[in-house]
Amino acid sequence: MEKINLQQKFNLFNDHWSPKIIGELNGQHVKLVKLLGEFTWHHHENEDELFYVIKGILKIELQDKTLELQPGEICIIPRGTEHRPVADNEVWVMLFEPAGTLNTGNTKNEHTVKELERI
Amino acid sequence: MEKINLQQKFNLFNDHWSPKIIGELNGQHVKLVKLLGEFTWHHHENEDELFYVIKGILKIELQDKTLELQPGEICIIPRGTEHRPVADNEVWVMLFEPAGTLNTGNTKNEHTVKELERI
Repeated sequence: MEKINLQQKFNLFNDHWSPKIIGELNGQHVKLVKLLGEFTWHHHENEDELFYVIKGILKIELQDKTLELQPGEICIIPRGTEHRPVADNEVWVMLFEPAGTLNTGNTKNEHTVKELERI
Repeated sequence: MEKINLQQKFNLFNDHWSPKIIGELNGQHVKLVKLLGEFTWHHHENEDELFYVIKGILKIELQDKTLELQPGEICIIPRGTEHRPVADNEVWVMLFEPAGTLNTGNTKNEHTVKELERI
């Protein structure tokens, strides 16, 4: 069993919108992802999703408002909730969600990542 | 749905070894806890446990070695693994673990917290 340093893990990749698995516990995955630009509107049918901002400012657009998360801030998006992450500048995020969660939820497009890399 | 600011949540309490629930998703709890001193050796029979250090240096003693976690570092303790958190100075930690996880695992003593506060 080893500790995991987030900064070191973030240094291992540069692509955007492609979550990397860094840990697994109780059927849940811990993932890191770098975001830049506007993502796809989507929801997850059966998974709640936690966003934890490590670096940058993350906007999460909801149907009735927009959350703006600074580093050290968290948001839990309940299953079924339409949302769209937007990163005007690069944002580093840690995700916590059930293993098997598809990044684009109920939609499939060029952002969809079916096989997640483990780093 | 609102965002959660970790610093603001940590400002709401000062006691040690008493995790506070700040969020719930997929049957898992997100908790914050302040640690100071030596905890109890214990394991969790059916729960994997994630420690994420926010502030301070956390030692996690295992049977064969000791991990030393800095801020921004994570450790996942698999179920069944004997461990003992030690904080020579105050440490702030975020925990991810299944709802219902008892902080002292298979042991019960003065550190055991049965009813967790939500903040």
